Amino acid sequence: MSTSLVLYELVGRDEAVRFSPHCWKVRLALAHKGLSARFAPVRYTAKEAIAFTGQGKVPVLVDDGITVIDSMAIAEHLEWRHPQAPPLFGDSDGLSLARFVNHWVDNTLFLPLARMILADIHAALAPEDQQHFRRTRERWFGQPLEVVSTAREAELPAWRALLEPARRILDDTAYLGGAEPRYPDHCLFSLFMMSQSVSAFELLADDDPIASWRNRMLQAPGAHEAAITGA
Amino acid sequence: MSTSLVLYELVGRDEAVRFSPHCWKVRLALAHKGLSARFAPVRYTAKEAIAFTGQGKVPVLVDDGITVIDSMAIAEHLEWRHPQAPPLFGDSDGLSLARFVNHWVDNTLFLPLARMILADIHAALAPEDQQHFRRTRERWFGQPLEVVSTAREAELPAWRALLEPARRILDDTAYLGGAEPRYPDHCLFSLFMMSQSVSAFELLADDDPIASWRNRMLQAPGAHEAAITGA
Repeated sequence: MSTSLVLYELVGRDEAVRFSPHCWKVRLALAHKGLSARFAPVRYTAKEAIAFTGQGKVPVLVDDGITVIDSMAIAEHLEWRHPQAPPLFGDSDGLSLARFVNHWVDNTLFLPLARMILADIHAALAPEDQQHFRRTRERWFGQPLEVVSTAREAELPAWRALLEPARRILDDTAYLGGAEPRYPDHCLFSLFMMSQSVSAFELLADDDPIASWRNRMLQAPGAHEAAITGA
Repeated sequence: MSTSLVLYELVGRDEAVRFSPHCWKVRLALAHKGLSARFAPVRYTAKEAIAFTGQGKVPVLVDDGITVIDSMAIAEHLEWRHPQAPPLFGDSDGLSLARFVNHWVDNTLFLPLARMILADIHAALAPEDQQHFRRTRERWFGQPLEVVSTAREAELPAWRALLEPARRILDDTAYLGGAEPRYPDHCLFSLFMMSQSVSAFELLADDDPIASWRNRMLQAPGAHEAAITGA
């Protein structure tokens, strides 16, 4: 069954440059479940490959003829369709936890992180995508692209403070999902993979418990492979 | 067993003025479990009643001779000690969800809310507590008490934006804990009870899904009683 999986992912100038946290969530979920997939690159201005979905967003997963859009929907699909593989959620409350952490990552952490590495993302894009990115992001942030990321050293402490709920959980357990990594971990980790894919800007202090967790995540089965497997 | 429960709670000028979210969490958890307790008031500068605990923080619960400190520890104690009563967590992943939401409430939402209603809290305190409150809070916020809350209209949109993870959950389910309120709901609701106990400042827009949820929480069995029961 796993050979029929195709994941459409956003890429930059180079197909190994992956900066979409939503695509990372799915990539990490696949690795967690031990599933292999064919990775199909998609760029902002070259979305013909996903035209068949009738919309323009990635990730898109095609699993044995079933097309699933949206990273959370894909994770839930993988859980129910591949129940014998390691669980992403656990039980129904585990799904509630994953949904909450996912919303927290997307709605609280993502935008201030994107501000800090926006110029780096732009620099990592294919030339034909840079104009699209500049236009849309300058509208979002109301500033020239070059200006948005200049205050990042000053903005970093506030971003680190936003991570406090996760830091407190990691006082008690090795992973957000408990004793083992699960989908809540993939959601948060996706931001660090996003950043690391395009930027040398260090988001965490060395002695931050979240930095230790990030190291553990990098060593989790599949995560390292996921990080280095080309398109 | 329930007649042996004593909850020590922080109060203001009037013993019905309760503005500690941590105490509210326990009050709501007790109501949720259908447990009745004797409420014992504690003020910032009159903590003799909890001297026996060897520390100065409330809530403190004494359950049939067992003393428990810290709202989360109390909630867990109530869950394990009163398993026949309605569950606060569900299963172990439900506990993980509750812990995450609790940390999020305490570490992300609490401080910017406290800023906005700080002058109102001060006004609701007993005269002998006001000096203590002024000294400690002016140290926290680095500004005169009267100044801290003056920007609240300007700060409110950012605070509402921080609620987005909960708002998204409420798109899918009636409560943060699922189909019924559970401890994650009590944690968030505690902030609204805190604010409402001392301030007329409205935190939510009428059409905010969180305002609808707050109304449902106000109508939950026990919540209204908890809100009006005196010391």
